[in-house]
Amino acid sequence: MYTQHNISGQSAYSLLKDLFPIARSLTGAGVRKTLNRIKKIIPIDIKEVSSGYKAYDWIVPDEWNIKDAYVLDPDGVKIIDFHCNNLHVLYYSTPFNGVVTLDELKDHAHTLSDKPSLIPFVASYYKKQWGICMSHDQLVSLKEGDYTVVIDSTLKPGFLTYGEIIIEGQSKKEIFLSTYICHPSLANDNLSGVVVTTALSEYILSLKNRYYSYRIIFIPETIGALVYMSKNLPIMKQNIIAGYTVTCVGDPGNFSYLMSKYEDEYVDRVTLHVLNSIKSKYHTYNFLHRGSDERQYSSPGADLPIGSLMRSKYHVYPEYHTSADNLDYVTPEGLNGSIELYQKCIDVYEINKYYKAVVIGEPKLSSRNLYPDTFQEKQLPEVNIILDFLTYADGSNDLIDIAEKLRVPIWDLYDLVATLLKIQLIVECKRV
Amino acid sequence: MYTQHNISGQSAYSLLKDLFPIARSLTGAGVRKTLNRIKKIIPIDIKEVSSGYKAYDWIVPDEWNIKDAYVLDPDGVKIIDFHCNNLHVLYYSTPFNGVVTLDELKDHAHTLSDKPSLIPFVASYYKKQWGICMSHDQLVSLKEGDYTVVIDSTLKPGFLTYGEIIIEGQSKKEIFLSTYICHPSLANDNLSGVVVTTALSEYILSLKNRYYSYRIIFIPETIGALVYMSKNLPIMKQNIIAGYTVTCVGDPGNFSYLMSKYEDEYVDRVTLHVLNSIKSKYHTYNFLHRGSDERQYSSPGADLPIGSLMRSKYHVYPEYHTSADNLDYVTPEGLNGSIELYQKCIDVYEINKYYKAVVIGEPKLSSRNLYPDTFQEKQLPEVNIILDFLTYADGSNDLIDIAEKLRVPIWDLYDLVATLLKIQLIVECKRV
Amino acid sequence: MYTQHNISGQSAYSLLKDLFPIARSLTGAGVRKTLNRIKKIIPIDIKEVSSGYKAYDWIVPDEWNIKDAYVLDPDGVKIIDFHCNNLHVLYYSTPFNGVVTLDELKDHAHTLSDKPSLIPFVASYYKKQWGICMSHDQLVSLKEGDYTVVIDSTLKPGFLTYGEIIIEGQSKKEIFLSTYICHPSLANDNLSGVVVTTALSEYILSLKNRYYSYRIIFIPETIGALVYMSKNLPIMKQNIIAGYTVTCVGDPGNFSYLMSKYEDEYVDRVTLHVLNSIKSKYHTYNFLHRGSDERQYSSPGADLPIGSLMRSKYHVYPEYHTSADNLDYVTPEGLNGSIELYQKCIDVYEINKYYKAVVIGEPKLSSRNLYPDTFQEKQLPEVNIILDFLTYADGSNDLIDIAEKLRVPIWDLYDLVATLLKIQLIVECKRV
Repeated sequence: MYTQHNISGQSAYSLLKDLFPIARSLTGAGVRKTLNRIKKIIPIDIKEVSSGYKAYDWIVPDEWNIKDAYVLDPDGVKIIDFHCNNLHVLYYSTPFNGVVTLDELKDHAHTLSDKPSLIPFVASYYKKQWGICMSHDQLVSLKEGDYTVVIDSTLKPGFLTYGEIIIEGQSKKEIFLSTYICHPSLANDNLSGVVVTTALSEYILSLKNRYYSYRIIFIPETIGALVYMSKNLPIMKQNIIAGYTVTCVGDPGNFSYLMSKYEDEYVDRVTLHVLNSIKSKYHTYNFLHRGSDERQYSSPGADLPIGSLMRSKYHVYPEYHTSADNLDYVTPEGLNGSIELYQKCIDVYEINKYYKAVVIGEPKLSSRNLYPDTFQEKQLPEVNIILDFLTYADGSNDLIDIAEKLRVPIWDLYDLVATLLKIQLIVECKRV
Repeated sequence: MYTQHNISGQSAYSLLKDLFPIARSLTGAGVRKTLNRIKKIIPIDIKEVSSGYKAYDWIVPDEWNIKDAYVLDPDGVKIIDFHCNNLHVLYYSTPFNGVVTLDELKDHAHTLSDKPSLIPFVASYYKKQWGICMSHDQLVSLKEGDYTVVIDSTLKPGFLTYGEIIIEGQSKKEIFLSTYICHPSLANDNLSGVVVTTALSEYILSLKNRYYSYRIIFIPETIGALVYMSKNLPIMKQNIIAGYTVTCVGDPGNFSYLMSKYEDEYVDRVTLHVLNSIKSKYHTYNFLHRGSDERQYSSPGADLPIGSLMRSKYHVYPEYHTSADNLDYVTPEGLNGSIELYQKCIDVYEINKYYKAVVIGEPKLSSRNLYPDTFQEKQLPEVNIILDFLTYADGSNDLIDIAEKLRVPIWDLYDLVATLLKIQLIVECKRV
Repeated sequence: MYTQHNISGQSAYSLLKDLFPIARSLTGAGVRKTLNRIKKIIPIDIKEVSSGYKAYDWIVPDEWNIKDAYVLDPDGVKIIDFHCNNLHVLYYSTPFNGVVTLDELKDHAHTLSDKPSLIPFVASYYKKQWGICMSHDQLVSLKEGDYTVVIDSTLKPGFLTYGEIIIEGQSKKEIFLSTYICHPSLANDNLSGVVVTTALSEYILSLKNRYYSYRIIFIPETIGALVYMSKNLPIMKQNIIAGYTVTCVGDPGNFSYLMSKYEDEYVDRVTLHVLNSIKSKYHTYNFLHRGSDERQYSSPGADLPIGSLMRSKYHVYPEYHTSADNLDYVTPEGLNGSIELYQKCIDVYEINKYYKAVVIGEPKLSSRNLYPDTFQEKQLPEVNIILDFLTYADGSNDLIDIAEKLRVPIWDLYDLVATLLKIQLIVECKRV
């Protein structure tokens, strides 16, 4: 346990490539296909609720499916093709099949004038309308004339689909991972979260003598989180001690951490200790910068302790919600670093306890072959770290506290703890 | 309620001009005349205690009144005239009528050698002596010879006079305003406090559905505060949740705030939030720099939570306690800004509560016409502020907390709170 | 009481010179001789435990004594002589008498290659071996040939010896001073601690109406502390409110303070206040830099509140544990300053209390001849300090708090407290 598990960013990247072409949305076939692919790797349960299901203040909308979408120019040339890039359709667009003037087309076209070469990702889940997305460059190049627009979508009662895996440990207390599966061909936001969460599930399943239980879900953002909460909130409130929304974890940029609502949760202590210990730059954001399902999980009445460990944060990186958030933007190395960092956090949750030294006074290390025979000027650092550890192992500090007192990464103490437990110089006390 | 009340600094300045010529002291006709003028504006009770009344460690001195004071030079020319400037007499001077040598005159003369053109304000309330105040320039210009000095004062058993108005609200809990009325022709210290307190009383009387009660007093400094406490301390300790000594609020300088004794009172939170929110420079002073009746109110055994919101602070501005603290030093704009700032504080006390969101998860703002129909890249700021507000409206924050979390002035949230209450997304919880 | 006691650094230095030549070690004649010399000055009890005595994880080793140690070079010249410098022997060296080759000698020689002119102090208390210490310069100058080595030591069952003095006060609560007596001819580490502790014992014995009891011990480091704890820990835990390991207090360098384990003990407050108030530079070290018997006293299960007030800290000054830590390195002035600083700390413990003003409101100082008769512009500083003191003398602050609020050394308030108690403006409340 706690040795590096053999899950590579490369295999996560392969899964991501498989999933990339699928036209996922809040509901529909894309989500089901994505979850079924994940189920081949980890034993998730795929669950559904019907359209019209009420989750707190929200109602699950009709199920949306899309087969095709394209635009023919006045010359009959197909200038927009959903099968070339599935961002070309307004997500949740009503079906449409007709001939429109250029002005009418522009009324239904979504572009990014400040990023004119990129196709935006746009959705209209709750207001019924049809729409086409394209690059601004393309839009301004269109000539006058009649355009044929076909959006072969369906919007009718059906289901909202999500995946869940509960991995049981010795304790009923849970670590919670939530990632969202409702975005189409966008690699970092959020296929990266989907594949990293899948990899972490494999890692957790591999852990022998797991202490915590893990609740891991793959859901449509917002409405999916609310649906899940509407069915599970009492048990979540009772058991979850720390959780993450896993998103935007595939690019090679520096890490970002969105702090929990009051920045005082165990998830913050653990994650910041890990981030500080790996000694690469990172950025923290306060909860005003939240943007994913922590919005629901930490809302008043839910009050779950949730942070979000990302690389380049949504809303911040320029490729966000555009056709540039693609398979080039995320990398195997980016995914790998995120998996490793989350693994280190999971290790901390699993290992971290309070310890108490058994012997009053310093133990005689030389009797235990832990001390040089003569002393001269300075003691060896190895001796110091043992004695420093024992000094602070007084039952009032957990291992994070001790590591921070000693100014070392917590993982530098894992072997020492095992040794000291074995030779009975310390005993385990409570968990956090 | 909470719209800007129509009390101008101009009307406060007019009142100040009316009151300026009166020769107020700890006791006597000047105080009575001043209080009677105020009573024409707000329904204060004018109260008196007799000379000899014991207030804790102090005894109310005899009542002092003055009709005239002047000095004739060796040529019979009137070179000092109380009626030109009532600072020329030592306040509480014993009566005197006699001819003195220049040296004798100098023994009884008070001047400011470092501000040689100004007449100082000097008083000797408890040691009986006669004295004349003049500019240092005048003193050094005096020629040898015999001077006739007349101080037509009386010092005999009488009364100490003060004004009080209790404006009742829904709660017995009180906001306390205290200003002192014992200084003669000094405009900022403290006629400015007197006229601003009068204006604030009008404002408070105008508030419909006032929540708090307001205890407002116009007293001689020190002995007046002690007399008032000696009669009211138990009820003050029971009810006052925040209070101010109102002084030096008429000049156009930056605001100053004298913090409460331990800098941790509600009055500090409210006042600092308001000062930070108006975005003009201000200075804070710790309680070691106190100098007015907070000295009594916050003494051990009284322990009232008192701050003092000023413009240029006593002891700090060079015109303090001199003839330069006159009608030119204070301005209508200076008074107006102080009235507005205190009004903003009063509004905060009246409005501030804890709020709690009713819906678990984010509410569906689009169902309530609070959300745009499609989303693209970033949400609108208006939506963010609603969701941010609701996130922190979890029953653990008052409105000041939420405003500070959201980094906005509290008054930016007043309309939002009203809207959210109306559409039943939040409920009111306790007050602070 | 609390006037400067007449104990000079000069007399401490004289005692230090007397004790310097003695070859002290963990056990043996040197320790006994040292303690008997101290007993001529202060009435310590000299106590012993037998070899083999078990103290927690440690066992008292055999008693070690040494008569002589020398080395003859191949020409029969005595090149190393214990009687010239007692650092030449490895402390706790087993006896040896033989002829060795240069290589064999080198195997048993201890030097400092980075300080080649100095003889190191080296000990091997628990591994049995023989050894010689010398300068590195001397070692490298030795020629090939046979060397005669004589170490006339004995190591056999005997005793561990220490001194103790309990000076009783009105309270059973104790201030604890611990110094170690196990080092041979090293002046700062730690004869300085021995003589300063002796001087402080004299000072404490001279205090009339002592409030606290004082537990003062002279022990061999580590094993001595553990032996002492094994016999006294329950009473120590019950009574000790603050303690110091007194070491390295004889050089003229700046003061150093090793904070208690969590830096939040009374000993830290008192000592830092005193250090800040004398306005000379000092350095603080956190508990990771501990190195003396606070290692035992503050170990889990013991948890005594111990700091260490030093001048140049062990491990830090280059002369540490070498022949350069000699009678030149410590000075009468260095010792004197340390004694005075510890005396100031003792005075604070003795005097510090909570105080409460008796009168509500400010007292009328003029009735008590504490106030000038007329006021003008600013009050006198003396008046301010009285009123500031009374403001904070509300029963919630001890004298250190008040001094720090008023930004004065606590001793500036001693006379004021006495005056205010005498005229009954304050009463004493609890101690810390």
